[in-house]
Amino acid sequence: MDTYIAADIGGTHLRVAVYLETGIEPIKQKRIATLGKGSPVERLIGLIHELWQADDKVLAISAGAPGQIDPTAGLVISAPNIKGWHNLPLRDELVSCFKVPVFLNNDANLAALGEWKYGAALGHHNVIYITISTGIGGGVIMDDQLLLGQRGLATEIGHVVILPDGPMCGCGHRGHLEALASGTAIANFVNEQLACGRVSSIPADPRPTSREISQAAALGDPLAVEAFKRAAYYMGIGLSNYLHLFNPSIVVIGGGVSRSGEFFWNDIRASMEAHVLFSEYTRDLALVPAALGDDCGLLGALALARSKI
Amino acid sequence: MDTYIAADIGGTHLRVAVYLETGIEPIKQKRIATLGKGSPVERLIGLIHELWQADDKVLAISAGAPGQIDPTAGLVISAPNIKGWHNLPLRDELVSCFKVPVFLNNDANLAALGEWKYGAALGHHNVIYITISTGIGGGVIMDDQLLLGQRGLATEIGHVVILPDGPMCGCGHRGHLEALASGTAIANFVNEQLACGRVSSIPADPRPTSREISQAAALGDPLAVEAFKRAAYYMGIGLSNYLHLFNPSIVVIGGGVSRSGEFFWNDIRASMEAHVLFSEYTRDLALVPAALGDDCGLLGALALARSKI
Repeated sequence: MDTYIAADIGGTHLRVAVYLETGIEPIKQKRIATLGKGSPVERLIGLIHELWQADDKVLAISAGAPGQIDPTAGLVISAPNIKGWHNLPLRDELVSCFKVPVFLNNDANLAALGEWKYGAALGHHNVIYITISTGIGGGVIMDDQLLLGQRGLATEIGHVVILPDGPMCGCGHRGHLEALASGTAIANFVNEQLACGRVSSIPADPRPTSREISQAAALGDPLAVEAFKRAAYYMGIGLSNYLHLFNPSIVVIGGGVSRSGEFFWNDIRASMEAHVLFSEYTRDLALVPAALGDDCGLLGALALARSKI
Repeated sequence: MDTYIAADIGGTHLRVAVYLETGIEPIKQKRIATLGKGSPVERLIGLIHELWQADDKVLAISAGAPGQIDPTAGLVISAPNIKGWHNLPLRDELVSCFKVPVFLNNDANLAALGEWKYGAALGHHNVIYITISTGIGGGVIMDDQLLLGQRGLATEIGHVVILPDGPMCGCGHRGHLEALASGTAIANFVNEQLACGRVSSIPADPRPTSREISQAAALGDPLAVEAFKRAAYYMGIGLSNYLHLFNPSIVVIGGGVSRSGEFFWNDIRASMEAHVLFSEYTRDLALVPAALGDDCGLLGALALARSKI
């Protein structure tokens, strides 16, 4: 059988799945920890070997990794969550090992590609995909092309300044969208308020997660509600900025925090509409949840491979 | 002779020029006031008639206009500087009058196209063009394609929120890049400071222009210097955001305010570099002045026509 092998490389887990030439149900898949015996590259190669069936013809291997990826050079420029992955020629390592074409891209770009080809944005030509979880990432398709830029470093959607001198972002800069509207930002805000003596149903210890805060918000806890309203307000500003820059027909939002509830979506939409330049930007705009869940990375890698072969 | 007719439609002037199949020197051109006897559309049609030589074969007419333009529909959705231009089917009006192909786009997009095809960004594949004058506009080329979005409304580079609750923008929203770093923003800041009794060599009456303020800054006037430093600081934030979103190999800056002097460019560059996520974004980045001056709109329209015929 002709197959594609897709890999989703994360700081915690490595996932590999085998797909046929058509269809989006894997015929085999497995997940292992990124860290363990052997380096992450050796573990990835071992997992691909394990899933590679002797009588298959593998048309291509396609992989998504976190961080800065140069897809043209096949290079992991930097992956902060995976120790030692700096200027790693991952494509060449996989090619020399498996002797098939290998394609590489940033995981958020691949998630965008997956949602466009197989998920919530099917049939659209101009798509913004945003994931809100611990951080904020995303990818953009315009005129049926994934935006990459000169070295594949475009659409770092979480790392734009929305509030100069605002809270510190995980990247070390201040006031980024990620520092204002991610799960980490929501948790940080609540923790700061609790540390200042703010009364809330949320216990301060152990440090609450954004999921616990969203549950408290659903029950009406004023601090939790305020934390989500604040995040939604800035996310709405960010989205209106992106409408002005990319003029999409659909915005797809995924990631754990996006599943916090209707109240969060309503507040995001209200802030986006309040900040938009003209109603033309939102009149026919779809604002929808991601459809592919945790498989978006694998399916995006599959879409990438199929687009290249 | 085979020729192209290019038009640059502004709130103050209409410019039309005739070009041959190759080359960027017009064989004829003329500028008239936008307002006068007849409507702006009638005046544009009259000017095209006047420059159209009887023995020419006109391959196409191409026009840039300010405001929201839908290039696919050939529609001026809205042009705030030209009274009555709302949902104006300008392409169809010109086609029915001249019986040749007509192409339409936003003037800032065409300026970007002009600088890319004939100006400062020649040979690049990923380009950001920004004009800083009364307002801030721009256009983006990625992977050799002008970014348009669903209805041609993408890359409204001046109208993104950089400072929530910041100064009012001409568009009626607060804290846009245009409200912080345009000529108008510089003049507004100086006027507010003068009204508060701030001492400066700049006379408060008549209201100083950004050009007068730049001359005062060049002579060391502290208020003028501060006004330009402030604008450059926010422009640097805006630029770093755009590097993260578009990952270009070149940023071209045009417009009157961009000609204020080296001090302004140095401050923009310093702020951009202070706010950039990783040095990969700036390592091979060219940050250069526009090359085409006032002809960028006409030459962009010419480039558009040549790309289509």
